[in-house]
Amino acid sequence: MTYFPNVNQIKFEGSDSNNPFAFKYYNPEEIVGGQSMKEYLRYSIAYWHTFTGDGSDPFGVGTALRPWNHLTGLDLAKARVEAAFEFFEKMNAPFFCFHDVDVAPEGSTLRETNKNLDVIISMIKEYMKTSNTKLLWNTANMFSNPRYVHGAATSCNADVFAYSAAKVKKGLEVGKELGAENYVFWGGREGYETLLNTDMGLELDNLARFFHLAVDYAKEIGFDAPFLIEPKPKEPSTHQYDFDVATGLAFLQKYDLTDSFKFNIEANHATLAGHTFEHELHLARINGMLGSVDANQGNTLLGWDTDEFPTDLYTTTLAMYEIIKNGGLGKGGLNFDAKVRRGSFDTDDLFHAHIAGMDSFAIGLKVAQKLIDDKVLDDFVADRYSSFTQGIGLDIVEGKTDLHKLEAYALDLPEIQNKSGRQELLKATINRYILNVSAGVTV
Amino acid sequence: MTYFPNVNQIKFEGSDSNNPFAFKYYNPEEIVGGQSMKEYLRYSIAYWHTFTGDGSDPFGVGTALRPWNHLTGLDLAKARVEAAFEFFEKMNAPFFCFHDVDVAPEGSTLRETNKNLDVIISMIKEYMKTSNTKLLWNTANMFSNPRYVHGAATSCNADVFAYSAAKVKKGLEVGKELGAENYVFWGGREGYETLLNTDMGLELDNLARFFHLAVDYAKEIGFDAPFLIEPKPKEPSTHQYDFDVATGLAFLQKYDLTDSFKFNIEANHATLAGHTFEHELHLARINGMLGSVDANQGNTLLGWDTDEFPTDLYTTTLAMYEIIKNGGLGKGGLNFDAKVRRGSFDTDDLFHAHIAGMDSFAIGLKVAQKLIDDKVLDDFVADRYSSFTQGIGLDIVEGKTDLHKLEAYALDLPEIQNKSGRQELLKATINRYILNVSAGVTV
Amino acid sequence: MTYFPNVNQIKFEGSDSNNPFAFKYYNPEEIVGGQSMKEYLRYSIAYWHTFTGDGSDPFGVGTALRPWNHLTGLDLAKARVEAAFEFFEKMNAPFFCFHDVDVAPEGSTLRETNKNLDVIISMIKEYMKTSNTKLLWNTANMFSNPRYVHGAATSCNADVFAYSAAKVKKGLEVGKELGAENYVFWGGREGYETLLNTDMGLELDNLARFFHLAVDYAKEIGFDAPFLIEPKPKEPSTHQYDFDVATGLAFLQKYDLTDSFKFNIEANHATLAGHTFEHELHLARINGMLGSVDANQGNTLLGWDTDEFPTDLYTTTLAMYEIIKNGGLGKGGLNFDAKVRRGSFDTDDLFHAHIAGMDSFAIGLKVAQKLIDDKVLDDFVADRYSSFTQGIGLDIVEGKTDLHKLEAYALDLPEIQNKSGRQELLKATINRYILNVSAGVTV
Amino acid sequence: MTYFPNVNQIKFEGSDSNNPFAFKYYNPEEIVGGQSMKEYLRYSIAYWHTFTGDGSDPFGVGTALRPWNHLTGLDLAKARVEAAFEFFEKMNAPFFCFHDVDVAPEGSTLRETNKNLDVIISMIKEYMKTSNTKLLWNTANMFSNPRYVHGAATSCNADVFAYSAAKVKKGLEVGKELGAENYVFWGGREGYETLLNTDMGLELDNLARFFHLAVDYAKEIGFDAPFLIEPKPKEPSTHQYDFDVATGLAFLQKYDLTDSFKFNIEANHATLAGHTFEHELHLARINGMLGSVDANQGNTLLGWDTDEFPTDLYTTTLAMYEIIKNGGLGKGGLNFDAKVRRGSFDTDDLFHAHIAGMDSFAIGLKVAQKLIDDKVLDDFVADRYSSFTQGIGLDIVEGKTDLHKLEAYALDLPEIQNKSGRQELLKATINRYILNVSAGVTV
Repeated sequence: MTYFPNVNQIKFEGSDSNNPFAFKYYNPEEIVGGQSMKEYLRYSIAYWHTFTGDGSDPFGVGTALRPWNHLTGLDLAKARVEAAFEFFEKMNAPFFCFHDVDVAPEGSTLRETNKNLDVIISMIKEYMKTSNTKLLWNTANMFSNPRYVHGAATSCNADVFAYSAAKVKKGLEVGKELGAENYVFWGGREGYETLLNTDMGLELDNLARFFHLAVDYAKEIGFDAPFLIEPKPKEPSTHQYDFDVATGLAFLQKYDLTDSFKFNIEANHATLAGHTFEHELHLARINGMLGSVDANQGNTLLGWDTDEFPTDLYTTTLAMYEIIKNGGLGKGGLNFDAKVRRGSFDTDDLFHAHIAGMDSFAIGLKVAQKLIDDKVLDDFVADRYSSFTQGIGLDIVEGKTDLHKLEAYALDLPEIQNKSGRQELLKATINRYILNVSAGVTV
Repeated sequence: MTYFPNVNQIKFEGSDSNNPFAFKYYNPEEIVGGQSMKEYLRYSIAYWHTFTGDGSDPFGVGTALRPWNHLTGLDLAKARVEAAFEFFEKMNAPFFCFHDVDVAPEGSTLRETNKNLDVIISMIKEYMKTSNTKLLWNTANMFSNPRYVHGAATSCNADVFAYSAAKVKKGLEVGKELGAENYVFWGGREGYETLLNTDMGLELDNLARFFHLAVDYAKEIGFDAPFLIEPKPKEPSTHQYDFDVATGLAFLQKYDLTDSFKFNIEANHATLAGHTFEHELHLARINGMLGSVDANQGNTLLGWDTDEFPTDLYTTTLAMYEIIKNGGLGKGGLNFDAKVRRGSFDTDDLFHAHIAGMDSFAIGLKVAQKLIDDKVLDDFVADRYSSFTQGIGLDIVEGKTDLHKLEAYALDLPEIQNKSGRQELLKATINRYILNVSAGVTV
Repeated sequence: MTYFPNVNQIKFEGSDSNNPFAFKYYNPEEIVGGQSMKEYLRYSIAYWHTFTGDGSDPFGVGTALRPWNHLTGLDLAKARVEAAFEFFEKMNAPFFCFHDVDVAPEGSTLRETNKNLDVIISMIKEYMKTSNTKLLWNTANMFSNPRYVHGAATSCNADVFAYSAAKVKKGLEVGKELGAENYVFWGGREGYETLLNTDMGLELDNLARFFHLAVDYAKEIGFDAPFLIEPKPKEPSTHQYDFDVATGLAFLQKYDLTDSFKFNIEANHATLAGHTFEHELHLARINGMLGSVDANQGNTLLGWDTDEFPTDLYTTTLAMYEIIKNGGLGKGGLNFDAKVRRGSFDTDDLFHAHIAGMDSFAIGLKVAQKLIDDKVLDDFVADRYSSFTQGIGLDIVEGKTDLHKLEAYALDLPEIQNKSGRQELLKATINRYILNVSAGVTV
Repeated sequence: MTYFPNVNQIKFEGSDSNNPFAFKYYNPEEIVGGQSMKEYLRYSIAYWHTFTGDGSDPFGVGTALRPWNHLTGLDLAKARVEAAFEFFEKMNAPFFCFHDVDVAPEGSTLRETNKNLDVIISMIKEYMKTSNTKLLWNTANMFSNPRYVHGAATSCNADVFAYSAAKVKKGLEVGKELGAENYVFWGGREGYETLLNTDMGLELDNLARFFHLAVDYAKEIGFDAPFLIEPKPKEPSTHQYDFDVATGLAFLQKYDLTDSFKFNIEANHATLAGHTFEHELHLARINGMLGSVDANQGNTLLGWDTDEFPTDLYTTTLAMYEIIKNGGLGKGGLNFDAKVRRGSFDTDDLFHAHIAGMDSFAIGLKVAQKLIDDKVLDDFVADRYSSFTQGIGLDIVEGKTDLHKLEAYALDLPEIQNKSGRQELLKATINRYILNVSAGVTV
C-alpha cells in the first residue's frame, strides 16, 4: 500500500517549475564547495513531528489527517514505520531521527516497553537494509511521561533517575544496533519550575553523574557515536539547565565531560535564549563543539517554541556559513525538528514543508559558499583586525607585553582612530549575494 | 564647498556593479505597476538621524564624524542645511522630514526659538526653490527638552500644554510655508512612567483637546495636509498612549477625530508592540487610515528601538504588498527613520545605509507587484473564503440569517471539512518570488 | 461519597495558623470598605482548570491525580459535577464558570452534543438549588475541536461560522437557564496564523456580525447578562483579534457594539500584550467597560500563558485599587482562571492554590481600601494636576482656548517649572501599606 | 556649604513614621542573624547615577536639578566629591563605588586624564580619612568614549586594547590607594553589533589575555581585592560576551581564570538575560563565585536596562536568601546601581530612592533570615530529595552504580510515585512570611 498516493518521488525541477512537489533549489547532485549537495546537506526527517505529531496545541486537540489515525498500539507503530520509509524515499532523505516513544508504545513496565521497542526496532532495521536513509541519531524521551514531572536525571526521585538511566542504556543499544551516527540528550524537564523547592547543586551533580554513566556504557559496548547536548532555555520547564551553548560549555567543563559531548543546536531554541541561530553555531564552532543541527525556525514575536520549518534565507545562509567554516558537520546533520502548522493538516503539507526546508538550506549553502569563495566577510574581518598582526597588537596576541608596556604605549597617544564597522554595507551585500545566487550572476 | 567629497551622484548600476555607491536594484526610471519607481517609492530622508544624530547611546557619547562637528548654534544649523541639500541631491531623494529642533537651536524663550527657526526655514525654503526634494512632513519635537518630562499635550502641567500647543501652531505654519505633504504627531512622552501618579482619563481627554485645537487651526490657515499619528508602545515612556494602530483607532473614534487623522507606521514600533510591520500596515489599510511609513527595522531579540536601516527583504516585500493594495501611499511616503549604527560613523555610511534601504524597498516593490500581478495570494485567499460567496455563507455576509436559522443548519451537520491553510507552501512561494525577481525569470 | 476526604470546610484562621487548609487573610465576614469581604470578592472557580484540566503541556501528558480519572463519557462528566459542588462548598466559593465542553462530552453531531449538555445542565441546576454557589458566567468553547482550526466566527469556512453560532445560541439558553450573571467570549482562534492566507477585513466583519446575532438572540430570549470580551494577544493563534482592551474598544466602537459588551480582563493576557494588569483594568474602567476579571498571574520571563494562581501582592493590590475605584465589579467577579502547576498534581494542591489566590486578593482589597481611605494616591494626583483647575489650565479643560491664545500665553514664558513625579517615594509607600495591612498598624 | 539642605541625617523611625526622610525598616543597629543590619547590609552608593547622572535618555536631555549643574571641569568634579560625602554621611552609607570618569574629567591624552584623576583621588582619600564610608569597588569606564566604539579589551583596534589596559593599570593603583574591597569589570562594549564583521574567537582570546595582564599586575602591586565580572547580555551592544553567570563561568574555566574572579550580579541584567535575580545569585553561589551585588530592579515588560531602585520585596527577599546561604557577601556589598527616574529630578528624590532601596533590602533580610531560621524551605527540600540519602539514590550519589545495575533496578518497577512540588503552597508561605515580618508575629 501507499500512504502518500498524491505524491511521487520528489525531484529537482528548478525555480521555474510550477510543480509544488518538486525541489526548486535543492539539486542533490549539484556540486557546491567541492561536494554534492546531498553529501553536504545531511538532511534528516524528525520522526516525532512527521509521523507521531497530530497538530494539537495547549488549546486544542490534534487536527492532522493521517492515514494511520484509525490504528492503535503496535499496529499504529508499524504503520508509521511503513509510512516513514515511504516518505524518506520520496523525499530522498539521507537520515532520520527518533525518540524511543515515537516509534513504539510504552508498556506498563520498562521491560514491556523495551519489548515493544524491540519489535519496532527489528522492523526498522529490516527496512534500513534496503533503504538509503540512515539514522542520524536516536534518543530517549524523558519528558512526556508523568514520571518525569520533576525531571529525569535531575529528578528529586531516585527511582526516576534509575528508570531514566535504564532508558538511556536501551537507547545506546538501539543506537548501536541501527548504526546511529550520534546520540542526543534534550533535557526538557532537566531544570526547575521554582527555585523555592529545588536543590540545584544536587540536580546538576546528578546530571553529570548520569552523563558519565552513559559515557562509560557507550565505551563498554563499543558505541562510539558522539553524544550531543541540545540546549534550550525554557519550555516546558521554567528554567532548563542546558540554557544555551555557553551554559552547556560551563557545565561540561566543570564536570570534565568536554571530550565526550558536542552540541545539537536548534534555531528556535537559540532565539528563545535571546541569541541568533548563527551565534550559537559560531560559539560552538570556535570551541570545537559543533555537532549537529536542529533545522527549524521560531517566531521572535512569540515566546514559545513554534518549531516552524525553516524558510528564512538569512538564517539558512548564516547557518550554512558557520557550518562550512566548521568544515561541515562531520557525523552531524540538519534535522528538520519542525512541525507543520496546526492549520496545515494534510499529508501533502508534510511534503510542502520538507521541500521548503530543503530548498531553503540549499539556497543558504550556495550563498554561503559564494560568500566564502569571494572572501567577502573574510577579507573585511582580516583588515578590521589587522592591527593585531603587527606592532603592539602582535605583542598582545603573542603574550609579550604587560601593563607597564601598554601604559607606556598609551599614555601620550593622540585621539585613537577607529574604522567604521560598515554594518549597513555588509547587510546590503548579503542581500545582493542572496538575490544573485538564483540569477546565476557572478557577484 | 562640499560636505561629502567622497561620493558623487548615486546612480543605478545594477547588482553586478562593484561600486558600493550605486543603486543595485533601485532604478528610479524603471516602470513597476504602471508607475516609475521614483514616483512609487516616495523616499524621504530623516533630518534628525542623518544630520543631527551623533551616534550616542545611553552608555556612550557620540561617535559620528561629521564635517560640521566643530560648529555651534545657528552656524551649525546652517551648515547642516547645506549638507542636507547636497545629500538629498546626491541620493536623488524626493522628500525629507524634520522636527523643529533638528533644524534650528532652541532659544531661552519660545519667541527666541521661533526666531531661530524662522532663519533656518527661510534658508530651507530658498534651497527648496531649486531642489527636487520636497517636504514629506514636519513636526514639533515635544519630548527632548526637560519641560516635557511629564508629557506635552498630556503633561500634568498646564504651562507645558500651552507651550506645546504654541509649538504645534508654529509647526503648522512652517508646514504650510514649505508645502509639507503631511503633519506628524509622535507622542514619545504622551504616556506614563507609573500609573501610581497618573490621571490617565484627564491626560487622554487633554490629548484629544490638543488634537482638536490643531485641526481647527490648520483649517483656519488653510493647511490641508493629513495629520498623522505615529504609534509606539513604549520607550522613552513606560507606556505610551499611541501604543499601536488599534489603540490609535480606539482613541480617534472615541474623540471624533477619525476624519482628520491617519497613521504614520514605523516598522520598529510595530515589533516593539508585538506586531509585524505588515500587520500594522494592513490594519490601517482596511480602516482607510494608512497615511505614511517610517521605513526602518528593529531587532526582535533586542527590546528597544534600534531604528536600523531596512534591509530585510521579507519585511520590505510584505510592506510594499500592503502599500500597493492600498493604491499607494497618496501624500505619504517612505521615510527612512533610521540611523546608522554607532560603529558606522563615517559620512560614507550615510550613503551606504540609504542605498541599502532604497534598494531593499525597490526589491520589495518588484516582488510585491509580481505577487499581485500573478494573483498568488489573492487567488488562494479567494478560494479559501469562497464559502462566504454562496449558500449559508452568503446569507451570513448579507445579514439574512439569525441564530435560529444557523442552528437549524448546524444541528445535524456531519464532521465539518476544512482545507489546509498551506502556510509552508506559501512561505516557500514568497522565497521563490524574492529570488526570481532578481533573475528576471517569469515565476 | 467525598472526592476530597483530606480537606474539610476551609475557614478563616488568620496568619498565625499553621493549618495549610485555612484562610490566613480572607475573612469572608470581615467588613472592608463598607461591605463584607465575601460580597466584595466575588470569587469564582474555573471548572476547566480545576475539574477538567489534567496538567498536560506541549511536552507531556497529564499528571493530575484525580479521583475521577478512571471514568469516561457522561459518567466522568457527572462525577466532575459532584466533585465540583463539594469543592465549591468546601472553598465557600460564591461563583463558578464553565465552557460547554468542560461539563459535558461532545457527540458526533451538535444535536448529540446538546443532548449530553442538557443532561449535565439539569444536574447542575439541581445542585444549584441547594448550593450557595452561583454561575458567574458560561461560554462556548470554540477553539479546542479541530473544526475551529481556522477560527470560529472568523473561520474561512461558513459551516464553522454557522456551527459556532448554534453553539452560542445554546450557550445563551444555558446561561439563562442557570441564571448566569454574564456571558463571555474568548476568541482564541479568532485571529490568524499568517497574513499570507488571511482576509482580515472579512474576518473582522464576520466577527461583528456574529456578535450582533448573539446580542439579538439574547434580547429575544430575555437574557440580560452583560456580554464580555476577553482580550488576549496571541496563543494559540499567532495574532488574535481581541489583542488587548484598546483593540477591543476600537472594534466595538467601529461595529456599534459598545452598549452590549464589557471586558473580562485577565492578568496573564495583559502581560502577554505588554501591559500591566492594572493598566488594562484602568483603561477599561475609564471607558466604563470593566466587566469582570480572570484572576491569575503570568511569568513575565516566559512568553506563554502560564495561568498561575495569583499570589503577587503588588498585582492584587493594584487590581483591587482599580476595582474599588470602579465601584466594584457589578455583576462581574474574580474568576480564578488559573491552573495548579504540572508538578502540583495532588487534589490537595487544588485547595492550596485557591486558598493562596483568595488570600492574596483579600490582602489586595484591604491594602487598596486603606490607600483609598487615606487618599494616598488621590491627593498626590490631585496636586499634580492642579494647574488644570485654574487659569490657562482650566481654560484648556473647559474648551475656552485656541492656538492663538495658547501661543500668546507661551511665547515669553520663562523656563517652565515641573514638579517631581516621586515614583520611588510612591513605590516605597505601597510597600509600607502592604506590610502594615497585616500588622493592623495605622499607616 | 551643604548641597542637600532639605535633608538631615536619615534615621530609623519605623513604619509608623510619616517622615519621608526616615528609614521605616532599616534599623542599622538591629541584630538579624547574629549581626547588626549595618554589618550585614553592606550598602553602597553608585557615584555615577547619583552624582554624575542627569536623567537623560535616548529621547531627551537631562532633567536632574543638581546644585552643581552650573559648574564644569575640575570644579564640577570637586563639588561632586563634596556633595557625595555629605550624601554618604546623611544616608549612613558604608560604601560607595565609582568609575574613573565619574569622578574626574578626561584630558586630551591619558596622561592628562590620569593627572585629573590624581587630583580628585587625593581629595577623595582626604575625605575618606574622616568618613565612615569606604570604597566597595572602583572600575575603569571603557564604554562611553568613542574610542571604545568597537570594544575595549575586545576592540579590533590594538591601540584601544593598549589604552584600556593602561586605564585598568591606573584603576588598580587607585583601588589599592583607596583601599577598595573589590575591582569590577563590566564589559558593555565587549561584545558585537553584528557577527558579519566580528572575529569572536580572537576577541575572546584577547579578553582573556587582558584579564590575565590585570591579574598579574594586581599581584605585582599587592592589590588583593577580588576581581568581579559583571554579566549583562545586551545593551549597549547587540550581544555582550559576559551574557550571564553561566556564560562567565564557561569563559573563566576555559581561560583558567576561576581563581581570580567572582561575579558582581545585577538584578536588571539578570532579567534582561531571561533569568530571575535569585537564579543568577544561586548559580554563582553553588559555584563559589558570588562576589557582590548590583542592587536594582528592572521592568520585565520593558526590554532595556531601567536600573530602578529596588523596591520589589519578593526580589529582595529571595536575593537575601541566597546571600545569607552564601554566608554573606564577604568583601562584596549591595551597590545601588540604580537611578532615579527622569521624572524624579529633585535632590530629594535621591534620598527617597535610597531610603526605599535600603528599607526594601532590610525587609528582605529579615524575611529571609526568618525563612532560614524556621527551615521553611530547607525542610521541604530535604524531604523532597530524601530518596538520594538511602538505597539506590545513595548509590547514585556515591558513584556505586552503573547502567547495568540501574536497569536491573528499573526494569520491573511498577508505576513510579512522585510527590507534589507544592509550588502554590510555597508561594503563599512566602507571602505570609513577608507580611508577618512587619507585624512582628511569630510565623
